[in-house]
Amino acid sequence: MAGQEQTYLYDMSEGNAQMRSLLGGKGANLAEMKRLGIPVPDGFTVSTAACIATMESGGEWPENLWEDVLSSLERLEERTGRSLGGDAEGRNPLLLSVRSGAVVSMPGMMDTILNLGIGDDTVEALGAEADNPRFAWDSYRRFLQMYGEVVEGVAPHAYEDELTALKSRRGVEQDTELSTEDLKELVETFKDVSRRELGRDLPTDPRDQLRGAISAVFDSWDTPRARVYRRANDIPDDLGTAVNVMQMVFGNRGDTSATGVCFTRNPSTGGKELYGEFLLNAQGEDVVAGIRTPKSLAEMEQVLPEAYEQLLQTMRDLEAHYKDMQDIEFTVEDGTLYLLQTRNGKRTAAAALRVARDMVSEGVLTQEEALERVEPSQLDQLLHPAIDPEHGKEPLVKGLPASPGAAVGEIVFDADTAAQRGGAGDPVVLVRYETTPDDIHGVIVAQGVLTAHGGMTSHAAVVARGMGKPCVAGASGIRINTAEKTLTVGDRTFSEGDQITLDGSTGEVYGEALELVPPQINEDFEAIVTWADEVRRLGVRANADTGEDAAKARELGAEGIGLCRTEHMFMASDRLPAVRRMILADTEEERAAALEEILPMQQEDFEAIFTAMKGLPVTVRLLDPPLHEFLPDLVEQSLLVQRLELTDGDADELARARTLLAQVKRLHEQNPMLGTRGCRLAMLYPEIPEMQTRAIVRAALAVREREGETAGVEIMIPLVAYSAELEAQRAVVERAVAEELESAGTDLDVTVGTMIELPRAAVVADQIAEHADFFSFGTNDLTQTGIGISRDDAEGGFLGAYVRDEVIPYNPFESIDRDGVGGLVRLGAERGRSTKPELKLGVCGEHGGDPASIGLFEELGLSYVSCSPYRVPIARFSAARAVLSQREGAEVRTDG
Amino acid sequence: MAGQEQTYLYDMSEGNAQMRSLLGGKGANLAEMKRLGIPVPDGFTVSTAACIATMESGGEWPENLWEDVLSSLERLEERTGRSLGGDAEGRNPLLLSVRSGAVVSMPGMMDTILNLGIGDDTVEALGAEADNPRFAWDSYRRFLQMYGEVVEGVAPHAYEDELTALKSRRGVEQDTELSTEDLKELVETFKDVSRRELGRDLPTDPRDQLRGAISAVFDSWDTPRARVYRRANDIPDDLGTAVNVMQMVFGNRGDTSATGVCFTRNPSTGGKELYGEFLLNAQGEDVVAGIRTPKSLAEMEQVLPEAYEQLLQTMRDLEAHYKDMQDIEFTVEDGTLYLLQTRNGKRTAAAALRVARDMVSEGVLTQEEALERVEPSQLDQLLHPAIDPEHGKEPLVKGLPASPGAAVGEIVFDADTAAQRGGAGDPVVLVRYETTPDDIHGVIVAQGVLTAHGGMTSHAAVVARGMGKPCVAGASGIRINTAEKTLTVGDRTFSEGDQITLDGSTGEVYGEALELVPPQINEDFEAIVTWADEVRRLGVRANADTGEDAAKARELGAEGIGLCRTEHMFMASDRLPAVRRMILADTEEERAAALEEILPMQQEDFEAIFTAMKGLPVTVRLLDPPLHEFLPDLVEQSLLVQRLELTDGDADELARARTLLAQVKRLHEQNPMLGTRGCRLAMLYPEIPEMQTRAIVRAALAVREREGETAGVEIMIPLVAYSAELEAQRAVVERAVAEELESAGTDLDVTVGTMIELPRAAVVADQIAEHADFFSFGTNDLTQTGIGISRDDAEGGFLGAYVRDEVIPYNPFESIDRDGVGGLVRLGAERGRSTKPELKLGVCGEHGGDPASIGLFEELGLSYVSCSPYRVPIARFSAARAVLSQREGAEVRTDG
Repeated sequence: MAGQEQTYLYDMSEGNAQMRSLLGGKGANLAEMKRLGIPVPDGFTVSTAACIATMESGGEWPENLWEDVLSSLERLEERTGRSLGGDAEGRNPLLLSVRSGAVVSMPGMMDTILNLGIGDDTVEALGAEADNPRFAWDSYRRFLQMYGEVVEGVAPHAYEDELTALKSRRGVEQDTELSTEDLKELVETFKDVSRRELGRDLPTDPRDQLRGAISAVFDSWDTPRARVYRRANDIPDDLGTAVNVMQMVFGNRGDTSATGVCFTRNPSTGGKELYGEFLLNAQGEDVVAGIRTPKSLAEMEQVLPEAYEQLLQTMRDLEAHYKDMQDIEFTVEDGTLYLLQTRNGKRTAAAALRVARDMVSEGVLTQEEALERVEPSQLDQLLHPAIDPEHGKEPLVKGLPASPGAAVGEIVFDADTAAQRGGAGDPVVLVRYETTPDDIHGVIVAQGVLTAHGGMTSHAAVVARGMGKPCVAGASGIRINTAEKTLTVGDRTFSEGDQITLDGSTGEVYGEALELVPPQINEDFEAIVTWADEVRRLGVRANADTGEDAAKARELGAEGIGLCRTEHMFMASDRLPAVRRMILADTEEERAAALEEILPMQQEDFEAIFTAMKGLPVTVRLLDPPLHEFLPDLVEQSLLVQRLELTDGDADELARARTLLAQVKRLHEQNPMLGTRGCRLAMLYPEIPEMQTRAIVRAALAVREREGETAGVEIMIPLVAYSAELEAQRAVVERAVAEELESAGTDLDVTVGTMIELPRAAVVADQIAEHADFFSFGTNDLTQTGIGISRDDAEGGFLGAYVRDEVIPYNPFESIDRDGVGGLVRLGAERGRSTKPELKLGVCGEHGGDPASIGLFEELGLSYVSCSPYRVPIARFSAARAVLSQREGAEVRTDG
Repeated sequence: MAGQEQTYLYDMSEGNAQMRSLLGGKGANLAEMKRLGIPVPDGFTVSTAACIATMESGGEWPENLWEDVLSSLERLEERTGRSLGGDAEGRNPLLLSVRSGAVVSMPGMMDTILNLGIGDDTVEALGAEADNPRFAWDSYRRFLQMYGEVVEGVAPHAYEDELTALKSRRGVEQDTELSTEDLKELVETFKDVSRRELGRDLPTDPRDQLRGAISAVFDSWDTPRARVYRRANDIPDDLGTAVNVMQMVFGNRGDTSATGVCFTRNPSTGGKELYGEFLLNAQGEDVVAGIRTPKSLAEMEQVLPEAYEQLLQTMRDLEAHYKDMQDIEFTVEDGTLYLLQTRNGKRTAAAALRVARDMVSEGVLTQEEALERVEPSQLDQLLHPAIDPEHGKEPLVKGLPASPGAAVGEIVFDADTAAQRGGAGDPVVLVRYETTPDDIHGVIVAQGVLTAHGGMTSHAAVVARGMGKPCVAGASGIRINTAEKTLTVGDRTFSEGDQITLDGSTGEVYGEALELVPPQINEDFEAIVTWADEVRRLGVRANADTGEDAAKARELGAEGIGLCRTEHMFMASDRLPAVRRMILADTEEERAAALEEILPMQQEDFEAIFTAMKGLPVTVRLLDPPLHEFLPDLVEQSLLVQRLELTDGDADELARARTLLAQVKRLHEQNPMLGTRGCRLAMLYPEIPEMQTRAIVRAALAVREREGETAGVEIMIPLVAYSAELEAQRAVVERAVAEELESAGTDLDVTVGTMIELPRAAVVADQIAEHADFFSFGTNDLTQTGIGISRDDAEGGFLGAYVRDEVIPYNPFESIDRDGVGGLVRLGAERGRSTKPELKLGVCGEHGGDPASIGLFEELGLSYVSCSPYRVPIARFSAARAVLSQREGAEVRTDG
């Protein structure tokens, strides 16, 4: 490998698909196709190693790289029988495309220069050779614009303005309507534009142009938009890009030429059907950039029947070879098919599942391989809500269903506004005529994207699908006025901030906010997750506080409740009065009386949950939040008292408000997260856990009586820092359990455990384990105290900035901080088991549903994870993936 | 040892001073004195093992214990030639004292029964034998009262009321003025009282009484007051007490009899002088309980010259033998001296230092032994403030200087109120007629104690001295009305809540709050701390934020500044406007301009500190608190805006108030402790650390220019959780340093390190160490996040309750939580050194001045501790003690 890293150039015939990290995805797959005998244009690849070396030396090319390029070029000239710049008379010129090719695909992010090698000396010969002078002059003007923009940095509008002006003078709409003479004029105009903008002519020596083009591709790796894309897609910044230098083939050589893109299966649904678009007499960029709206691939059968048949056969061959759905770019030059690219196709979540499941049915993949073809984030997308089918509204307009799912939000018309408002947490929908790679930062935070222009393979569609973000593209019925920030459909006009709803699965757009309904889970989904169950080791439970949530969790495959929070039962508006009486009680008797009122309500809640989960374990966490959470806010109450005072309000009301304010002040805490909550509260008021325990036991007995079976009762003590706390609370719980069972004259298994959610608890887990039947790692709180971050304060504040500025790689509340918080979980698990080797260890923070975090929990050998009901399938799937990657890791370690 | 634990009884001649854990302090020392030939009453000791066995079996005596007691009694009867209950005619009776004797002295806490063996059958014979019938009847009535109260649980006032009534009928003041006939009547009355209160007679068989008395002493180990005392003095609950059964000797046998207590040196000053008190014709409890005010020991020379001489010789012998100051109880019976107890004397801090230093001069102790004779808490006392000598006020009244130091607080008249208000943090002075062991919970939290009655060795005085709490005792000029809660001196009357000041060193009491001044440190103190410097390994620095504090720290022996907090410089009222402008700045330029204003002020502060510390290192911590700390409180500002709104206030003022409120709300945090502070702030506003760094460097250069030498500059980044934070902040600091040095054209060594004050930082200390020249463990914050406790909220709340209810052994903010937070420090130190073995590791939390915590830091091999200037001597001393106890631990381990 060390030797290979010093090799900067590969002829296409030297590579293969495994050389992706050196040749980039495009280069490796082109070489692989050549190997398979599939027609691709000839050429060579400048490796990522050359790009990295150039970046590291601040832009200086490695020694000999240029000489190597020249000799590769010479070999290419020999093989093609053509020469760059043509012969002495400019005949038989070799034209080149210079394309970026990163290791991980970054569609539209990086630069490309086409038609390199055309010039005043060769344009006529090229036209003559093709018997199509118009094509030659069209290629020339394209080259001048592309080179000026990409290599020299001339602003795009400089050329576009002249093109638009010319079309306007000629009274035509389409570029294709311009005549050869028009294009000749445009070539001269473009030369003037470059001279005006740069103060000099563009280089005319094709070799100078080639060197400039390769450098420009290197540079495009490090543009802001590329960096934003990489961050959004977790692509490392130090991979670099390869550069593919290939003989041009021309889709714009006339009406027997074309260019197009296609997928071997439908990337939206996964269906095994024809899916693609093409443009006659066009170059590839015209399709991808969405500037002209292309035709469906099916129509190609009529106009280019032979190339069409050949394309279908090639699609079958490539899918069989790669064992995955392919995304293909092709060009037909004078009836001859050339493949310009193949890669595993991006697809929607639904498509990913369907393809994986179909390929198992087709015998192409094993079940375990199929699991590795689906990303947890794709399951997540399917669990997203859709528009309530009962809405009964007429769509405002219909576009292409470019990326499925439903989005509701306020209209914004530019990516900066989207980034700003969406970043602040407002739901926005980005509405654009068409999107460009520069809009990426707005797309990332928008709920969805609507464009007036472009097809299913336009930039907006590809990016949105990759992110699982709803997108409606090519909604040609809408008119956008960017200056006035309005969107008009017929006689209805919408302004920035108006509500809109997109249905990316149907292409429908609604001019109001519609209700969304929970996602539907289909058979593909069920199949994949059931295969995952056969592989995973970790148990998967759900966090649920109501019978309804518990039932949903069970339906989604939860094997129990890992966290039932009881405070939500206290918060319900019909219970708050009794809860407040309990808090405001002056004596233990008053408090006991108020608790007595709450008990039957709690019991009712527990009965619903235990009924839904009968036969499975339910971990009930006793009251956790500080008491002041049940009282009015300090600021509000202070203002109320002052208002009553200053406005001579009712004396009784004032007296009550003051009494309540005094209590609010008494219970107010500077840092409630670190305050009197969890078992600390229970230590001060043992009558609370006692009441809760009684309600739990009574509920379990009532359910068993009624249903013949009840849930497994696990009582969990929150916020334990000291083993003495757990010891004392366990005694309170056990006493109440014993009394209830004695008075009921029956038996019930009740286990008692604790949250490990404070760093101290992890450090002294050996001591705490003495009194615990189980641990559940509360990784939300452990993140807050372990890193010293208040989630409420940080996410909109420094933490957001840290993620944006890459101080930290991801938000530790979304995915567990492996080294820090993960280190504490590791410590807690090891020390807990040092006391009780059989100790049951769960996780009930939100990380319990996060795939990367589940990887760590598998590594630590925990017993189960618990997450919100809708993440249960993802957790089941991720737990299987964790087993597979542990196994691969183990194989690598064994091999090494 | 296992065999010894089964032996429950020891005759006095079988023991020695080393058998303290089995015989208790009193029993072991009585046996030792007997061994030395010093006159002590004969007897035997029931061991602590018997007490523990009895407690463990729920009150049941171990098998054979009673038989063993009876046979020990039989041997005692043989040795004394007397018999319990007298002979057939009741002659020659053996009277016994039954005294508790714990392993660690708990003065006044436990029970004693005297005169056991007297009864209707023996009282006449005893009177005849002594030729003093009054003495016999006096002893009888004392026995009845004591047995009734201690063994049978009759309320004390039941007997006292009758005694008072009788004295009133007889028109006398003192018990001694009652006649024999009066006492005979009192005996009958007391029998009636017992019968009335208990519904039966007291037992009359002396053997039954003995069994009851021993059981009562066992039981007294577990009274609430004893538990409170043990908790306050860190005495384990499972030691148990021994019971000393000894022949009575009588100090109340007439005017050649006496009882007294004395110290071999002055326990207040440590001076080698006569110090003691005695009462003629009295029993020991009369002196200790402070019921009669005793006479100075010097007066004994006149009345009992022989016994006096013998006592002086015994004092010299005992001190020489024990190599420590002794606290002695004695009785003279008919001119013959008996020692009832000797023990190492409790002493004031000043006395402890003086005794230790004198004994080194006398050649009795080595320097290292002397270090072990002083407790860190004693040094602490000496560092307490005293009354400003310039006060110019007349004292209200003068009492005995019973425990030195000054106390200012509000008057409270009962221990419960003292416990409640003092526990809540209010400074209170407990004012009592006399204190009893039941007042202990009030004494613990009071600033000081004032009693109207009792001498220097009264309960109040002994307890207060032990706690280093100022006490004025026997202030006979005050009248206390407990019912109305008033204190009257002459015509001035004070109520509960009025301010009072005590000077425990002079006995003066002032009827107002006086100013206190910093403590003075004497030569004894200097000597001890200088010896400590020769032994200790840990460096000792101070936390100081001003030149003044730095100078004081250096004077007290600080070897540098371990923590200079720069936020205090921001808080100063003359700087707050510029600081607020900085916070409210809309643009980076405005912020930079405001910072530019602050820079010279910061520089000035640093110059003062660097000047004071020239030649020593100074660690400057960059800005730590969240910005909203510099703005008004949210509630206050909300109320202001509403008030201006409702009262049609000035429009400009309202607009300003609203703008400020908006900013306060924007910066408000739910949990500021976990919010945008420390380096998080600096990451968002790098111009702040840049400004601070410039100010530091300019100050260091200015001081070097002016003084020829400057301090060693160490810049510390606070609240680092991620190594990337330190890396980034280090870059900001280093850039600013480089720029300043370049523009000054000079050089300066600046090191950059970080606080380790978050659990994550400890866990990933290996990563953080890559970018750190030093670590300083911020154990205050590490305690807050490690245990999940907000100090502001917890100490008055659940944490106070935890300490009180013994859920945790001590407040983790006062002494480091060894297992939890200490575990994190250990982790951080180990991992940090795994990256950089030579990494300098300091501690700058308040634990840096806590002796127990210093023990841990020595064990972990840290480099230095840093604490507030006044704790520097204690840290120096404790660091030496830590070395000595490590060495002892190592020896024990080597031996084992």
